[in-house]
Amino acid sequence: MKKIHVNTSTPYDVLIERGSLKRSGELISAVSKARKAVIITDDIVGRLYADTLCDSLEKSGISHSVFTFPNGEHSKNLSTLSDIFDFLCDENITRSDLLIALGGGVVGDITGFAAASYLRGIDFVQIPTTLLAQVDSSVGGKTAVDIKGGKNLVGAFKQPVLVICDSDTLDTLSPEILSDGMAECIKYGMIRDRKLFDLIASHDLGNIRDVIDDMVYTCIDIKRDVVENDEFDRGERMILNFGHTLGHAIEGWHNYTDYTHGMGVSAGMCMISRRLAPADVTAMLEKCVKAYSLPTDTEAPMNELLPFCTKDKKRDAANISYIICKEIGKADIVKVTTAQFAELMEG
Amino acid sequence: MKKIHVNTSTPYDVLIERGSLKRSGELISAVSKARKAVIITDDIVGRLYADTLCDSLEKSGISHSVFTFPNGEHSKNLSTLSDIFDFLCDENITRSDLLIALGGGVVGDITGFAAASYLRGIDFVQIPTTLLAQVDSSVGGKTAVDIKGGKNLVGAFKQPVLVICDSDTLDTLSPEILSDGMAECIKYGMIRDRKLFDLIASHDLGNIRDVIDDMVYTCIDIKRDVVENDEFDRGERMILNFGHTLGHAIEGWHNYTDYTHGMGVSAGMCMISRRLAPADVTAMLEKCVKAYSLPTDTEAPMNELLPFCTKDKKRDAANISYIICKEIGKADIVKVTTAQFAELMEG
Repeated sequence: MKKIHVNTSTPYDVLIERGSLKRSGELISAVSKARKAVIITDDIVGRLYADTLCDSLEKSGISHSVFTFPNGEHSKNLSTLSDIFDFLCDENITRSDLLIALGGGVVGDITGFAAASYLRGIDFVQIPTTLLAQVDSSVGGKTAVDIKGGKNLVGAFKQPVLVICDSDTLDTLSPEILSDGMAECIKYGMIRDRKLFDLIASHDLGNIRDVIDDMVYTCIDIKRDVVENDEFDRGERMILNFGHTLGHAIEGWHNYTDYTHGMGVSAGMCMISRRLAPADVTAMLEKCVKAYSLPTDTEAPMNELLPFCTKDKKRDAANISYIICKEIGKADIVKVTTAQFAELMEG
Repeated sequence: MKKIHVNTSTPYDVLIERGSLKRSGELISAVSKARKAVIITDDIVGRLYADTLCDSLEKSGISHSVFTFPNGEHSKNLSTLSDIFDFLCDENITRSDLLIALGGGVVGDITGFAAASYLRGIDFVQIPTTLLAQVDSSVGGKTAVDIKGGKNLVGAFKQPVLVICDSDTLDTLSPEILSDGMAECIKYGMIRDRKLFDLIASHDLGNIRDVIDDMVYTCIDIKRDVVENDEFDRGERMILNFGHTLGHAIEGWHNYTDYTHGMGVSAGMCMISRRLAPADVTAMLEKCVKAYSLPTDTEAPMNELLPFCTKDKKRDAANISYIICKEIGKADIVKVTTAQFAELMEG
């Protein structure tokens, strides 16, 4: 088993091992005294993995119940959250019990926020089952739900007590969902690690599974390093948002329905790079994302995307910060006025 | 101006002065760089004080808008919170802007939780306008909303950047609302300060205003001390919940409608004391609450109250903690099983 220790305000381990889902009861018991847990999952992931998790909890003497909601970003809202709270209350969940997020980013984000808020905070465990959730959303403690005005606009910083990554769960992912996660992996290479980028660029959607365990480990380790330096997102952590200001805007323009997060981030990275990065860097990035069936551009007109950008959390009253990689493996944070950002994008 | 410095994870001042509402723009500018604020208030308090606050912000060059919701505990829910989030988003509020809670406990609690969650946290100022909010809910950083299963079951620990207590606002309170706040003042005397208790016991609802400035100061200072020692409610802070486990249950039994928080706490303090405190302590407590038109008992049958008690946040899987004052000015935290608690209460 590979282990990455995340040294945040409340520290925890990320465990990476094939087959670890089957051992989750035992792994959880090693870090938590909780004897009662609520598993939060969606209908698709629940069907695949809830029984395995329940069996494992059972063996470790942790009683459990399961809350299931419909798969998809449209479920990540205050209404689902309210249903989760009512469920926890009906199940008499107390501060000494535990939530377990079993699923992708949507499940992890909403479960984390539920854990941050219910009784003003109870422990939770992340069991991410998609590539995106394993390399990104399950580590670092950002939790959130979406509101009418935009994605992830309401949430909390809440670290899990444990993250269990079972690479076996990645084997069942559709090419679309694998592709979705690859955008974030490419991002890690771009902002921090030329070697990681080269590893990814030398593979494609068809054969990346050959090196996926190493890739996942490296991505999480980069995220750990960035998050440890800036847990509450006041500085360096912003580099993780390379491609995200435009990416979130594109997702928003598509109503978060027919466009994945990874597609948004991929297009966002390429669009900002074409405007500001050296041509060879942009060319390598574009070639790489294409190998993973990810887009380099969007059909959304820029003047319709900009209003979404001004809802970005990475801004203050009059400014917006964007991330640019002038060489592969290095990122800069640039703060401009919203007017300058608009000019840059529309020009 | 009297000032109490609260040395929590993020420290702040509580300012106590007659007429300070009129100076709030200037007072806020001294601690915050925000140039834009959203005032959150209810229809009753808003009518009385929003204009004064807006004028003062205007003079200090802080632009502002006002979100108003219907007065009362029934507004303190996820639905109102969702409306607040949408309003903040429509107003383009960013992490460098500010929320201002203008009102009683309901306004303060929901505004605080909105400030904790919107963009994962923005600054907020408390301007409590009721006695209850000044001596209790505005200080200490507990924020929350109610859900179906009970009161304050969802929330966050979020300290304000400033608390402005204008005692002038207490002059307009109805006897019922003044009485509501007095229950918490009596509680502070019971758990920590015999002198405070004697001051309150030597007055009544008709003449307590003669000494209200001193009383408010002493109550906040006690709360400051307790909160500084246990900001996240893992130990000593529980003593502030004297009378509250039963009090919340009584409020719940009455559907939070025709029964104030103060009435619940008052009855709760007397009920636990009659069972566990020396007779002379109970007699003094009962005499005191009666002088403020507060109840010593409830018509709710104990077997119907107990299910509400097991929803209390001050419990873990199998236990519940209650607070008892065996002499005036001293409180103990007692942890028992829920079965023992039921036996104690029903016996």
